[in-house]
Amino acid sequence: MFTGKNIVHSDVVTKATHDALARRGVTLEDIANIVYEMQVPYNEGLDLAECVDSIEKVLMKRELQHAILVGIELDELAEQGKLSAPLQQIVESDEGLFGVDETIALGAVFTYGSIAVTTFGHLDKNKIGIINDLDTKKGIGVHTFLDDLVASIASCAASRLAHRKRDLEEAGLTYKEAHKLKNKQPDQQ
Amino acid sequence: MFTGKNIVHSDVVTKATHDALARRGVTLEDIANIVYEMQVPYNEGLDLAECVDSIEKVLMKRELQHAILVGIELDELAEQGKLSAPLQQIVESDEGLFGVDETIALGAVFTYGSIAVTTFGHLDKNKIGIINDLDTKKGIGVHTFLDDLVASIASCAASRLAHRKRDLEEAGLTYKEAHKLKNKQPDQQ
Amino acid sequence: MFTGKNIVHSDVVTKATHDALARRGVTLEDIANIVYEMQVPYNEGLDLAECVDSIEKVLMKRELQHAILVGIELDELAEQGKLSAPLQQIVESDEGLFGVDETIALGAVFTYGSIAVTTFGHLDKNKIGIINDLDTKKGIGVHTFLDDLVASIASCAASRLAHRKRDLEEAGLTYKEAHKLKNKQPDQQ
Amino acid sequence: MFTGKNIVHSDVVTKATHDALARRGVTLEDIANIVYEMQVPYNEGLDLAECVDSIEKVLMKRELQHAILVGIELDELAEQGKLSAPLQQIVESDEGLFGVDETIALGAVFTYGSIAVTTFGHLDKNKIGIINDLDTKKGIGVHTFLDDLVASIASCAASRLAHRKRDLEEAGLTYKEAHKLKNKQPDQQ
Repeated sequence: MFTGKNIVHSDVVTKATHDALARRGVTLEDIANIVYEMQVPYNEGLDLAECVDSIEKVLMKRELQHAILVGIELDELAEQGKLSAPLQQIVESDEGLFGVDETIALGAVFTYGSIAVTTFGHLDKNKIGIINDLDTKKGIGVHTFLDDLVASIASCAASRLAHRKRDLEEAGLTYKEAHKLKNKQPDQQ
Repeated sequence: MFTGKNIVHSDVVTKATHDALARRGVTLEDIANIVYEMQVPYNEGLDLAECVDSIEKVLMKRELQHAILVGIELDELAEQGKLSAPLQQIVESDEGLFGVDETIALGAVFTYGSIAVTTFGHLDKNKIGIINDLDTKKGIGVHTFLDDLVASIASCAASRLAHRKRDLEEAGLTYKEAHKLKNKQPDQQ
Repeated sequence: MFTGKNIVHSDVVTKATHDALARRGVTLEDIANIVYEMQVPYNEGLDLAECVDSIEKVLMKRELQHAILVGIELDELAEQGKLSAPLQQIVESDEGLFGVDETIALGAVFTYGSIAVTTFGHLDKNKIGIINDLDTKKGIGVHTFLDDLVASIASCAASRLAHRKRDLEEAGLTYKEAHKLKNKQPDQQ
Repeated sequence: MFTGKNIVHSDVVTKATHDALARRGVTLEDIANIVYEMQVPYNEGLDLAECVDSIEKVLMKRELQHAILVGIELDELAEQGKLSAPLQQIVESDEGLFGVDETIALGAVFTYGSIAVTTFGHLDKNKIGIINDLDTKKGIGVHTFLDDLVASIASCAASRLAHRKRDLEEAGLTYKEAHKLKNKQPDQQ
């Protein structure tokens, strides 16, 4: 049994991460559409279910969970006008030279290697799909951190798919065979 | 004249950064003592005033200012019990596997190159001077982000000194001559 | 006087950096065209000379110089078939999952903050201008590291321009006035 | 079957990585001693075999394998005097402000999160065990990149152990039970 006193159990953190995304109007399917668009040119036969599956796996990583919880907290506090000056104004206006949103998102991106970093930069500049919706929604609500977090989740999931496809090819497995194996055990770091 | 509407002027952000550190009980001299200890083995004749000066210069960088404002805000919100669960508990207890504090601090450290990164890691593990005081103060107040931010400021200032000493050597200047020149113009990126 | 024995003087490293780029067929104007395209939407009246100037300034940073020297050396060694197996084959074929080229380039990008990182990711994916030429030139010569290095230089110079424009606005200076001041003293870290 | 033409199979890269370390006189036990020293304060009952096991797992990651192959290649080329000037002199003398060795090592460290980054910085400064031996061996042979690579491997393995211990605690498993499960399937990203 897990007896760490005062330590929040991973299951609680995982649930809080999913809840926070849902509360801010971002579904796993929204993010999967971005992953699909990024990876389908390199992966014939990729389907949306694989992308959702990859997102679910990266959302189990602590580094990404913590980034999401902190970023969404700051967006919500800014929305409620509860940050102190001048941070309130900087976050509220999503200032061009403010970079803590990218920094927090990048911390998680790094754990998926350099492919994830370049994918993140691309998504952050080109604001594909839900990332653009969040950006243009700015009148209603603060999404300074959320758009970078979505780009982070998508680039982690895309990089994970790229590495995994290669592992499967080398092992002579098809995705479906691997899928069955994979579901028996969680990702390990 | 500067006319960007809704844009917070750098002077306001710089002042807020200094105020935040002072409010949390960290003086530039506290940080300078760490920088001095790190750099004196490589720089005969280094004095504390040079270290304070280097800290003042790195505190003018946006990347570091924003990191400090966000990190201290999160510490203060946690201290007041104003973060939502489970983030409140994670930050309050400074959980060993929570890494957003290091990530935010590292974003600024990166701008001073790889020497700064290794110095940061060293300070973060070995908790020299005020960093240790903050760590053992934990009973009174939350300093989850602040100790990493102090390590970040110290490692940026130490790396800046190392690069600058080399520039001066190559230019055939002594520190005192350079100091006079430097004060006429701010650092440029 | 500079007396470090066995230490290569910065001027030698700076010259070697410029020579290496020229030897590999990359001009500062090629890179300036990318910087211009990236920054003109945010900077009315930006001209190519400003972009070349910004590139010259970032090329004085040690972190970027060292990255360029190492990356181009590896490209040239691979071109001559002088790397050992299996690295020779990996570099020669610019393997999709090989990321040391991006890693080396990113080390320098980090020193210009998070704007530089997202710009780098964008350029690395979308291969604008000379970056694309290098990529399609692959039949003749190895440019595995060079395309990432060019993206690195361009994103550093673009980020530097963005930060600098803001500093000037706040100081109430025009670019031309600042240009005169700037030429009197080198960038400081 | 794996049919990617010109693509080097992972098994070949893994073998080359182990061979390169052995050729440069670094054993997995040397690195395990460092990991043990870093992690035993937080993990009662940790043994050296667990540390070797963790090192073997991180050495299966592409990001780390590629870093090791590139870094050792550069050390060996410098040792043979085959790099061009001034890079030959910079690498040979392990110049204090040269940071590409840390940058390459850090690329892999990032994939194990912020704990790995601070551990790396600590090891890089304090040169524990084999890292110190390599550093003082400098008269005979060039180890500019190797000492950082060893610090990288050790910090990845230490971070992996820290995360894994927590996962096991939460799952109510002991290390030995988990060890049996783990050996049936490789780590997944």
